[in-house]
Amino acid sequence: MAELSSDERRARIVLSRIVEPGDVDACRLVREHSAAALLQRLQTGIYPGKAKLRDWSERVSRAGYDEITALADSVNARYICPGDAEWPPTANDLQRLEQESGDRRGGAPFGLWVRGSGHLGQLAERAVAIVGARASTAYGEHVAGSIAFGCAEQGFTVVSGGAFGIDAASHRGALAGGGRTLALLASGVDRLYPPGNTQLLKRITETGVVVSEAAPGCVPSRSRFLVRNRLIAALAIGTVVVEAALRSGSLNTARWALDLSRLVMGVPGPVTGASSAGVHQLLRQPETLLVTDAPEVIEHISPPGSNLAPSKQGPSSQRDLLHPRSRQLLDAVPAVVAATAESIAKAAGLSYCDVVARLHALERMGAVARVDKDRWRISRQ
Amino acid sequence: MAELSSDERRARIVLSRIVEPGDVDACRLVREHSAAALLQRLQTGIYPGKAKLRDWSERVSRAGYDEITALADSVNARYICPGDAEWPPTANDLQRLEQESGDRRGGAPFGLWVRGSGHLGQLAERAVAIVGARASTAYGEHVAGSIAFGCAEQGFTVVSGGAFGIDAASHRGALAGGGRTLALLASGVDRLYPPGNTQLLKRITETGVVVSEAAPGCVPSRSRFLVRNRLIAALAIGTVVVEAALRSGSLNTARWALDLSRLVMGVPGPVTGASSAGVHQLLRQPETLLVTDAPEVIEHISPPGSNLAPSKQGPSSQRDLLHPRSRQLLDAVPAVVAATAESIAKAAGLSYCDVVARLHALERMGAVARVDKDRWRISRQ
Repeated sequence: MAELSSDERRARIVLSRIVEPGDVDACRLVREHSAAALLQRLQTGIYPGKAKLRDWSERVSRAGYDEITALADSVNARYICPGDAEWPPTANDLQRLEQESGDRRGGAPFGLWVRGSGHLGQLAERAVAIVGARASTAYGEHVAGSIAFGCAEQGFTVVSGGAFGIDAASHRGALAGGGRTLALLASGVDRLYPPGNTQLLKRITETGVVVSEAAPGCVPSRSRFLVRNRLIAALAIGTVVVEAALRSGSLNTARWALDLSRLVMGVPGPVTGASSAGVHQLLRQPETLLVTDAPEVIEHISPPGSNLAPSKQGPSSQRDLLHPRSRQLLDAVPAVVAATAESIAKAAGLSYCDVVARLHALERMGAVARVDKDRWRISRQ
Repeated sequence: MAELSSDERRARIVLSRIVEPGDVDACRLVREHSAAALLQRLQTGIYPGKAKLRDWSERVSRAGYDEITALADSVNARYICPGDAEWPPTANDLQRLEQESGDRRGGAPFGLWVRGSGHLGQLAERAVAIVGARASTAYGEHVAGSIAFGCAEQGFTVVSGGAFGIDAASHRGALAGGGRTLALLASGVDRLYPPGNTQLLKRITETGVVVSEAAPGCVPSRSRFLVRNRLIAALAIGTVVVEAALRSGSLNTARWALDLSRLVMGVPGPVTGASSAGVHQLLRQPETLLVTDAPEVIEHISPPGSNLAPSKQGPSSQRDLLHPRSRQLLDAVPAVVAATAESIAKAAGLSYCDVVARLHALERMGAVARVDKDRWRISRQ
């Protein structure tokens, strides 16, 4: 894909202030005609009567290119488009989704505002999204932070939404892991929302990026959060949901990830509270994966056969290595008051000769102790 | 299947004291020849030199029929065999498993000791197993108890192992739900093990049953617990695991349930502790089901399409019923300081005419309030 002409780029910058982010009609008109053509139609007032086009027309007079770029310049933000070296190709998967399924919820973006030292295209090459509740618990924040830390340590970019709670814990975990992270905002990249996370979002821009489809100056709104979620899902190989109530926005991100054939993972939590109820609902669907730590997440988002999570095993004991008959015998050896081989044989249900031979072998291993000529108990070593 | 002759029944009673419960060789010899024939061979000392047959031979002299039945009578226990009216047909599924897969871990039982007023066959008709850690947490006990309560209330028998922790919480929950419950012991039914659960196990016998493959007088041992687990799995439609560490015995029960083509369900818990790590490992296998409460368990163990769990939904709001454009508008209406329709239209990205019409409609619904001629804010009703 070739780079855009400067006229088309200018038009897209203006459109990013006029149309709602991800508006499917706008995305399609830009793709099929051009942003310049759409903008001209809006400026001349020739539009086919749709309420949405009326909205855009009204806004066109208020959206000055110079005003937008001045705001962008004030925070060193840049506008990138499909065809640019920094453009993340995974964002284009939304186009396939829109075309194949006629999805009306959000089209493929025609441009993205980027703020920060990171290279968006490179950051999105190996990325995992970690999302969850704003009203999180200490449990959820701990788990999200530690998964983000582990993934970042292994070179994965952590993508999230910059919100309070799980999002912030994930971004922080990635930074703590010495990795890079990417925050997708619903507002313009000049408005680091929520204000309480301003310092965190600024830190993100030092090595990573803060990204938005909406032009500088745009305020966040509920619908913009939802449509923003599709980009979180698209830019990552997989999405991990940590703590989500039944109507959580992060379930919307998970839905997008599933629709985009991305991996969807969920971290379970207590079933007695509401904080993980949405995650459990998600995990009851067969296409989702239960994860409990970073190695499990990394195994899923890595090429098959690589980065396998170490298999979890409880403490193994010398006992496991014994012959089944020796184990059966050992179970019958008393721990406190020593017993004769005959009475042990009886309790174990094993023949006397066999028991005597095995008791001596177990004594050599240090598993049983002989108290006198023929009385045995479990060794206290 | 016809009832057994009294000679064969006598022989099985004696064998239940001699052979380890579920011993595959013993189970097969009894099935293919008879318990009477096997016992005679052991009594005459004619056996083909296998260590196991030597064990049995030694024990045969010590296992008196009268002694066993006296112990059984002392606790009103009865011995039931395949072909008896009270025999649970689901126990025979272990035979299929043993024959099809050559499973060496435990054969189909040739008889069961039963203590209590319940009818084992009827109890096992609609049964769910709930198993888990002995070293359980308050969380696990609460969840196990409440799932058992809910299942028992709906007429399902709760099957468990009578142990401390999750087992005890499940039995108690079932009794509290006015239902019946079935405890499968690794010791003889005269030895209510563990002693700390004696009162609970006695209460179980008032309406349900306590069951064991081992004869009265037998002590529990580690291998007997494991082999007992196959009966818990076999007698239930599905097995629910609540709290299990990585090497928990309840994962062994789950394994049996999977091998028997029964449903295996797991209740998740915090990933930060070890208490649910085994459950999570289980839930990462595609053939297992995540459950969070009794209705979900009941849906799984009921015929398809019946007893559907109510779908879990968060609180819905009037907002959900609005047109997307009205929702977009509502997001732009200030909550505190009222704004003009023009400024709201600008913030919402909607055309002025449309906004004015929708604001009046939202006012009639009580969603927004008009402060003066043309200033609006979110209603405080």
